[in-house]
Amino acid sequence: MKEKIITISREFGSGGKYIGILVAKKLGIPFYDKDIIEKIAEESGCVDEFIKRVSEYAPSKSIFAYSFIGRGASGESIEDKIFAIQQKVIKELAEKGPCVIVGRSADYILRDMDTLNVFIYADQAQKVKRTMSFKGVTKKEAEKLIKETDKRRSINYKYYTGQNWGERQNYTVMLNSTLLGVEKTADIIAEIYKKEIQ
Amino acid sequence: MKEKIITISREFGSGGKYIGILVAKKLGIPFYDKDIIEKIAEESGCVDEFIKRVSEYAPSKSIFAYSFIGRGASGESIEDKIFAIQQKVIKELAEKGPCVIVGRSADYILRDMDTLNVFIYADQAQKVKRTMSFKGVTKKEAEKLIKETDKRRSINYKYYTGQNWGERQNYTVMLNSTLLGVEKTADIIAEIYKKEIQ
Repeated sequence: MKEKIITISREFGSGGKYIGILVAKKLGIPFYDKDIIEKIAEESGCVDEFIKRVSEYAPSKSIFAYSFIGRGASGESIEDKIFAIQQKVIKELAEKGPCVIVGRSADYILRDMDTLNVFIYADQAQKVKRTMSFKGVTKKEAEKLIKETDKRRSINYKYYTGQNWGERQNYTVMLNSTLLGVEKTADIIAEIYKKEIQ
Repeated sequence: MKEKIITISREFGSGGKYIGILVAKKLGIPFYDKDIIEKIAEESGCVDEFIKRVSEYAPSKSIFAYSFIGRGASGESIEDKIFAIQQKVIKELAEKGPCVIVGRSADYILRDMDTLNVFIYADQAQKVKRTMSFKGVTKKEAEKLIKETDKRRSINYKYYTGQNWGERQNYTVMLNSTLLGVEKTADIIAEIYKKEIQ
């Protein structure tokens, strides 16, 4: 079996994370998202010194709570340091074997590996509906959350990759989860993956 | 079997037309592209009067040779008239039953029908290579042809649909034919289609 990693980028509210979980389950391979990558980074010990150094800025136990609070004592960008740590964790996970990684610019981080880069998008009305339901927020709050989250993703992606988030040239396949449905979207990704590793 | 039309939009040089032919063959349904739609329009008789009216502008037998030459005797846009005729032909073809239609803004024209809207794109180097090979042109000519054709498609699509050509929200699925390969891209579309009509 040829090694292949599935990276999933997604619009907020498109069901991309859930689709990623389904794909991993269908293929019997591990699933990693932001929370898991952060946890691994924290447990790895490689960030201990970094946490100590920036701990004056925020009381949270998570190093990722330090994002966007400015610069560390050494004058280096905290975001850059966090990106470097995540990059290291993502590469190590990918080297272990086939897996599904949602978000974290994994498509770019793993650009020298054999990856199937997926982008999940959805119709605005359904993204709003899903966000209202999963986050328990009003329509207006959901719209704001979608807009701001995707804007932040877009800015971060551009900054770290030099590429445009959501631009088709960066992905192998882009799927509309509203028109296809989340279950079928996951089926399609799993089938493309199987075809690819034949 | 639920009626469903596959529309294929594509970057020039991405192999979209060939993929469309393969998909139609795999599914055993008709394939239509620009040339076929033009031929049907010409044979339908509905354009006879129009041809007569604009025949002073160009000697070609094809009504589509009149594109972009200006306005007809009545002052109406010739492009608009041609679009209206193509629209009529495309709707009639779609109403006959499942088929594959490449180009002609069919995704928009058939927006009230049950369609699977596909967009095919490819890496620039492969588009150039394919164009050089199929059109027998130099690298420079191929690059120019790709740029100008896609620019014209983009402008026409915007004018007639009010939408942006290649923007993900207009499509069900977008596939990179370089990374997937044309054969596998066709397989994937056929499989998505089968899932959709289940």
